[in-house]
Amino acid sequence: MTGEAAPWPDLAGRLTPSGHVLPVRVYYEDTDFTGVVYHAAYLKFIERGRSDFLRLCGIHHADLSDGVHGEALAFAVRRMEIDFLGPARIDDALEVVTRLDGARGARLCLAQEVRRAGALLFSASVTVAVISFDGRPRRLPAALAARLEGAGQPD
Amino acid sequence: MTGEAAPWPDLAGRLTPSGHVLPVRVYYEDTDFTGVVYHAAYLKFIERGRSDFLRLCGIHHADLSDGVHGEALAFAVRRMEIDFLGPARIDDALEVVTRLDGARGARLCLAQEVRRAGALLFSASVTVAVISFDGRPRRLPAALAARLEGAGQPD
Amino acid sequence: MTGEAAPWPDLAGRLTPSGHVLPVRVYYEDTDFTGVVYHAAYLKFIERGRSDFLRLCGIHHADLSDGVHGEALAFAVRRMEIDFLGPARIDDALEVVTRLDGARGARLCLAQEVRRAGALLFSASVTVAVISFDGRPRRLPAALAARLEGAGQPD
Amino acid sequence: MTGEAAPWPDLAGRLTPSGHVLPVRVYYEDTDFTGVVYHAAYLKFIERGRSDFLRLCGIHHADLSDGVHGEALAFAVRRMEIDFLGPARIDDALEVVTRLDGARGARLCLAQEVRRAGALLFSASVTVAVISFDGRPRRLPAALAARLEGAGQPD
Repeated sequence: MTGEAAPWPDLAGRLTPSGHVLPVRVYYEDTDFTGVVYHAAYLKFIERGRSDFLRLCGIHHADLSDGVHGEALAFAVRRMEIDFLGPARIDDALEVVTRLDGARGARLCLAQEVRRAGALLFSASVTVAVISFDGRPRRLPAALAARLEGAGQPD
Repeated sequence: MTGEAAPWPDLAGRLTPSGHVLPVRVYYEDTDFTGVVYHAAYLKFIERGRSDFLRLCGIHHADLSDGVHGEALAFAVRRMEIDFLGPARIDDALEVVTRLDGARGARLCLAQEVRRAGALLFSASVTVAVISFDGRPRRLPAALAARLEGAGQPD
Repeated sequence: MTGEAAPWPDLAGRLTPSGHVLPVRVYYEDTDFTGVVYHAAYLKFIERGRSDFLRLCGIHHADLSDGVHGEALAFAVRRMEIDFLGPARIDDALEVVTRLDGARGARLCLAQEVRRAGALLFSASVTVAVISFDGRPRRLPAALAARLEGAGQPD
Repeated sequence: MTGEAAPWPDLAGRLTPSGHVLPVRVYYEDTDFTGVVYHAAYLKFIERGRSDFLRLCGIHHADLSDGVHGEALAFAVRRMEIDFLGPARIDDALEVVTRLDGARGARLCLAQEVRRAGALLFSASVTVAVISFDGRPRRLPAALAARLEGAGQPD
């Protein structure tokens, strides 16, 4: 029945020279009574972008939490600076752009944007930590850190 | 930058002989502390399925609410019967399957499922009404009703 | 600073002869672009009602998942029949009413409603299972089951 | 049936000398598979705090959007700086503390925190704009701006 569906890698977006790009559609769930996208919905959009950027680098939340790389690990957001620059509306086709700004020890810094037809609607600087399931900071396993190298990192 | 991204129709899923199929990924936002997908997240998944089924039939929420077809209209869910049959987890690749069971006057009846690799995780019978923005029932405009004919309706 | 805040039990609603009653406010997060409460938000409202009904019966999710009563346990929704009867709007003061219709083995059946100033907006029949963290059905520990007896159960 | 429920003003929190305080409970909907509160849920918590702070100042979203004060108006978040300082868990009793740092023209600046038993878990600096429903910046009507004066503003 589902043989014709797009192959899954397409849903994880694309790694491009200027960053990872994930298309996202605006549905009812993302809007509020003022007629536009609810402000916290953008945090969900950019988390999908981060997850799929990592996925295309070979880093999977399920593997990390299952302890495939040793101790069970997860990502936790530590800091965000966010600018809401323009509204998005129901049915809009948006793009989440994710660039790795740096990875040091237990922390990743990412620059993320949401765009519609090239227009910038949302911009965020995000710091993410790697933690154990009891909340302690951990280094990203070396094999995974190596996979991030060159994936969207600035020169 | 985004020229390599998949063309948008791919994100709206596919109309297949056995129903509309939309791939959906499980992200952090969809899970809860018990380790699986939060029950109400399935309602979001199947609404994305309904919206994209309608989109591929040429029926757009933005057009309806902008009054492109006359009075400003929207869809409102009236009734659901839901069975939660199995858990989904972070990173899972799911498929939302949507079939139109019937359209009469102001109401659409749909059968919707969520599957993972063919296994049925969630099943719902959904009744949706067309309403004006002050909440009164309205018929789907005839031109749009015609677009639904044959789109996944049973013989 | 917060000495004047209402004592916490107030936030868990009230056990009344006709069921548990939890006041709930409608915020931006609960609405969608059609100007009313998003349909899946009602599932969040009634889960808050179920959680606080159980809390006032002495059954706490944190204790269950921490294994205070033996094996780590959680609740999982198995089935829902839902009628959406009227819209709610931003700032509305709603009440979630929860009544236990029966408890057998691993399952609880509850009748839940959302009302505004007495008017019925939403009604649901909900079946909830007790499960282990690997998803297997479990009986509610006897000491906890005893606490449910008489708590809103019909004669 | 609901006569015994807490009077509604209790659900809107308290204006205290050190800011508005809103108690918030952590439910299933707020958590993710890593076992703690999902990061974007804090944005919902602090929006509830802002809404109830404004409510106790006599400023209501429903009145604004209904045009009670002239043109239909709404609030839109423009900028946030956020620090996630510690995890919260299911059943936790949190407090959202909101202080008005300044109001100028179309913009309000607020300092917001989420605490548990005095411990700081989350801190945000938030800039909110008043806008018309077509997205243009507007001054808060003078009568409403007057109500904000003295309500939690620093000396």
